[in-house]
Amino acid sequence: MKVVKDLIWKKGIKVKDLVSNFKYTGFQATELSKASDIIIRMKKAGAKIFLTFTSNMATSGLRGLFAQQIKLGLADAVITTVGAIEEDFMKAMGENFEVSSYFADDIELHEKGSNRIGNLIITNESYARFESAINPIIKEIYEKNKTPTPSEFINFMGSKIKDNNSFIYQAYKKNIPIFCPAITDGALGFHLFMFQQFHKDFIIDVVKDFQKLITFTSHDDKKGVIALGGGISKHHAIFSCLINGGLDYAVYITTARPYSGSMSGATTQEAKSWGKIKDEADAITVHGEVSVFYPLVIFNVFEKLSEEGLI
Amino acid sequence: MKVVKDLIWKKGIKVKDLVSNFKYTGFQATELSKASDIIIRMKKAGAKIFLTFTSNMATSGLRGLFAQQIKLGLADAVITTVGAIEEDFMKAMGENFEVSSYFADDIELHEKGSNRIGNLIITNESYARFESAINPIIKEIYEKNKTPTPSEFINFMGSKIKDNNSFIYQAYKKNIPIFCPAITDGALGFHLFMFQQFHKDFIIDVVKDFQKLITFTSHDDKKGVIALGGGISKHHAIFSCLINGGLDYAVYITTARPYSGSMSGATTQEAKSWGKIKDEADAITVHGEVSVFYPLVIFNVFEKLSEEGLI
Amino acid sequence: MKVVKDLIWKKGIKVKDLVSNFKYTGFQATELSKASDIIIRMKKAGAKIFLTFTSNMATSGLRGLFAQQIKLGLADAVITTVGAIEEDFMKAMGENFEVSSYFADDIELHEKGSNRIGNLIITNESYARFESAINPIIKEIYEKNKTPTPSEFINFMGSKIKDNNSFIYQAYKKNIPIFCPAITDGALGFHLFMFQQFHKDFIIDVVKDFQKLITFTSHDDKKGVIALGGGISKHHAIFSCLINGGLDYAVYITTARPYSGSMSGATTQEAKSWGKIKDEADAITVHGEVSVFYPLVIFNVFEKLSEEGLI
Amino acid sequence: MKVVKDLIWKKGIKVKDLVSNFKYTGFQATELSKASDIIIRMKKAGAKIFLTFTSNMATSGLRGLFAQQIKLGLADAVITTVGAIEEDFMKAMGENFEVSSYFADDIELHEKGSNRIGNLIITNESYARFESAINPIIKEIYEKNKTPTPSEFINFMGSKIKDNNSFIYQAYKKNIPIFCPAITDGALGFHLFMFQQFHKDFIIDVVKDFQKLITFTSHDDKKGVIALGGGISKHHAIFSCLINGGLDYAVYITTARPYSGSMSGATTQEAKSWGKIKDEADAITVHGEVSVFYPLVIFNVFEKLSEEGLI
Repeated sequence: MKVVKDLIWKKGIKVKDLVSNFKYTGFQATELSKASDIIIRMKKAGAKIFLTFTSNMATSGLRGLFAQQIKLGLADAVITTVGAIEEDFMKAMGENFEVSSYFADDIELHEKGSNRIGNLIITNESYARFESAINPIIKEIYEKNKTPTPSEFINFMGSKIKDNNSFIYQAYKKNIPIFCPAITDGALGFHLFMFQQFHKDFIIDVVKDFQKLITFTSHDDKKGVIALGGGISKHHAIFSCLINGGLDYAVYITTARPYSGSMSGATTQEAKSWGKIKDEADAITVHGEVSVFYPLVIFNVFEKLSEEGLI
Repeated sequence: MKVVKDLIWKKGIKVKDLVSNFKYTGFQATELSKASDIIIRMKKAGAKIFLTFTSNMATSGLRGLFAQQIKLGLADAVITTVGAIEEDFMKAMGENFEVSSYFADDIELHEKGSNRIGNLIITNESYARFESAINPIIKEIYEKNKTPTPSEFINFMGSKIKDNNSFIYQAYKKNIPIFCPAITDGALGFHLFMFQQFHKDFIIDVVKDFQKLITFTSHDDKKGVIALGGGISKHHAIFSCLINGGLDYAVYITTARPYSGSMSGATTQEAKSWGKIKDEADAITVHGEVSVFYPLVIFNVFEKLSEEGLI
Repeated sequence: MKVVKDLIWKKGIKVKDLVSNFKYTGFQATELSKASDIIIRMKKAGAKIFLTFTSNMATSGLRGLFAQQIKLGLADAVITTVGAIEEDFMKAMGENFEVSSYFADDIELHEKGSNRIGNLIITNESYARFESAINPIIKEIYEKNKTPTPSEFINFMGSKIKDNNSFIYQAYKKNIPIFCPAITDGALGFHLFMFQQFHKDFIIDVVKDFQKLITFTSHDDKKGVIALGGGISKHHAIFSCLINGGLDYAVYITTARPYSGSMSGATTQEAKSWGKIKDEADAITVHGEVSVFYPLVIFNVFEKLSEEGLI
Repeated sequence: MKVVKDLIWKKGIKVKDLVSNFKYTGFQATELSKASDIIIRMKKAGAKIFLTFTSNMATSGLRGLFAQQIKLGLADAVITTVGAIEEDFMKAMGENFEVSSYFADDIELHEKGSNRIGNLIITNESYARFESAINPIIKEIYEKNKTPTPSEFINFMGSKIKDNNSFIYQAYKKNIPIFCPAITDGALGFHLFMFQQFHKDFIIDVVKDFQKLITFTSHDDKKGVIALGGGISKHHAIFSCLINGGLDYAVYITTARPYSGSMSGATTQEAKSWGKIKDEADAITVHGEVSVFYPLVIFNVFEKLSEEGLI
């Protein structure tokens, strides 16, 4: 029997000690701790790890953590939405995002050209400089390949920057694919459309990327997913694994709830009915906000693997 | 001053009377009632209306309601994810989905080939028959057009069925585009990939569809959105309107919350900072589950417009 | 097999028809429909029905619905918090509450003496007039009984008003007890404290009310609960039934989630582990906001029972 | 301008460093960090601090943290529900609670006499031993005082145990009042009722405790609240401060949402309209689960105050 233990502060307490104590705290603290353990086992088993997240997370400081995770070898493929690609790239270009307030006056922000994402701000200037930077890249890609896939496109973007805290840079360096099934859904989509106006033979081949994703793992591979938030990024990962026999390890961290039947709120349990996750998989759905929960989860993973010399 | 009024049941009370009373009930009942009024004004102003929803809603009985909404002229463009396309088509083919339980045994379901979506079930047989039906359609499209857009593809699917409760059929009949920016993210993606294996020149042109979406409205058009749930469907609609001067009318209905900074939880207020929604727009974020809230909202809209001979 | 059916609007559609259709719609629409059926069975079985709700619901227009429910014989005991008592009484005195906005300027409201509850407003004037009205009542009760229970106190308040839309009035008329285990937690608490300053022998006997609650039902009674929202009102009802062998019928409607282990989010399933709800009970947890969900649930109950001549 | 900074793991990173970095991470991580700073300022300003929490938190390992907080002088009054009192006392008696699963079979648990609270378990044996222990205490209190208040009752309970991780013990030692406005709402209520059967002159005086709470602070005192979760515990604290001119500092941490107008979900902003919190107060509503969020918040407070020699 695992007994609830009183949580007590000790001066200078480390994150890893807190997460270890959480195992005995109860509620989501306990689930968070279990999620961390699953990722450790996922890595030790040599599973191919899919890391999925939504674009707002790349807007936040988690972006650096995703880059570090790739660098340390804990992600073999990344799936995200196009905003994450744009914003990671902007930061690599030196753009700053502001920590503001959920209660900022949105009409005033609009007048100033400040675009709000929760309590963060991206300015129109950042988007304008992104445009200047991305257009020559689109041209260069086009000259090499008239029908690139999203992952090829993003890989090429990664080759153009040098920022250790950029996940597209780290993915480029480690040759890790970044999938982005809805690549037109953002500023990049607009620039692609403008370019296509004068280069009708330029087509982004999304189907070919789906092939790449599906053949990225085989039935025989151990497979794991870390799905942060929901949406198509999460679904893309687990659906591709369904085709290859299902995931052996799965960690979902989300604020979405299962009651409306949405993909975002669907649990690891529901995924088993589909075979997206194996019946006997090591899987958990943690209910909490990624900006707080994930650093605890992954810092603990890094600590433990580092202690064992595995990263 | 608008005063809270006691809500009282009367024998045989109609939905429209309940929704009218909700105006004075308080909390989300009041917000729901306002959302209904905004859609009425949206329609009367002749706005171009974007209807966006997530795929689980098409799995549910709301699918018939979306079809009816298109038929009655209250949607000029639809944006959704590929699961919605697949499941609408399956139902048009005669497939049945089961109302089951959130607490079904998922491992048992897996053994039976029953895939759970909240409290609903789609069987593997339905997916198998979908495969048989979609493959000749892919071939036929390919023979006409080697590089179709998602909306062209879906339009052609609509031409192949005849079901008044199908939204892709009604959209086909009314020549309403259905955008699906992540068309590979589902079973259809798999079939497209298989086809492409032997037809390397077959490419789905997602960029061209983004052009179509952006040029679908102009700065001068009045524009409105009804965004049910979140994800890329919602973002795709509001982002395209940003480029054309912003939305004049917006109704969001969602269970996602703004606190994590996600697109799904982003409010109409946040959208104003971007110019996705105009500063002075007629806009509301209603916090509730679409399966219950939307029928109330849209039934009331239909009643009122019908009374005035507008539908 | 229960099959998902397309939901279609028909001109003049009634609430009861919508709720009937919800059975086949999926997601929370289906759960809502089941909740309605459970209440019908609860009533037909002659169960003693506990109705619990939080005070904000009495601030809203639902207050009239609760009164009507009592009048129609669908509540045998009510449990709520003291704000509900105060606000029901204020309305019976003729006070008006305002439908305002969630985004009102709270500092401006404060200056005006307007107190916000979500999108509703109660003014300081209403509280002042409540004070004038309640003080002589406290005195009168004291003269009859130096140690009244909360339910005796509230019953006496009910005798002093005459408003068919008041739930304390209807409860008084039907001799239905209203339990309020935390009777000091509001303006009434303040007035009781002021009175006690000069009447030291005046004590509210909460323990005696707990006796009354526990002996209100026996092991042999069929017992049902309709718990709207969470908190102590909900717990008080189900805990008292634990002592008497558990509930036979239970409907919870709430926006609280089970993940934090709170009473408010605890499901009917969790309650079975305690014996608060019987193993084989007819029970459901519906996830939605009461202001919208409950009118649908209970209107349908009223319709069906009325059709059968049972109310 | 405060700029988003990339979050990076460093080997052996401490909790305080993570919380400091959260200031620049965005979303709730940033809000959590601000909450921690507010508590530090609250303490430094010499504010009287109200700590409120729901009973499930005392079931969890947070109970030890609450005890430590009292011991370190960061709580001047505690407000909670009766379950928290019972469970803290049980643990002080040596009872163990089990860390189990949200998905345990509740009917099986019931057969075993295991009562589930989220993913935690309390056995019937623990409740039985609590009964044996509490009955002589009730008798002893009765012999001293026929009409004790809840806070007097709990203080006496505290005198009977000796457990540094017990918050009622630490409160007893520091002479900190613990208010419990709904003292009958649990097992203790049942034992009080049984005792009263044979001691009719035994009455718990809740009104007198409300006097004590209200006179606990004056208009001139600086006042702060740390409200963990919602319900009457939260309301009791902020309502009492309304009467004394409002709170100067307020930290709410909750998973409840403001959309339904409930007290649990009401924000610090809404509280300003009432004057429960001063217009110019240092206040924040953090949206997250207490089991994970609060240890981060308060550990950082302890570290910072400890570094400055203030605790």
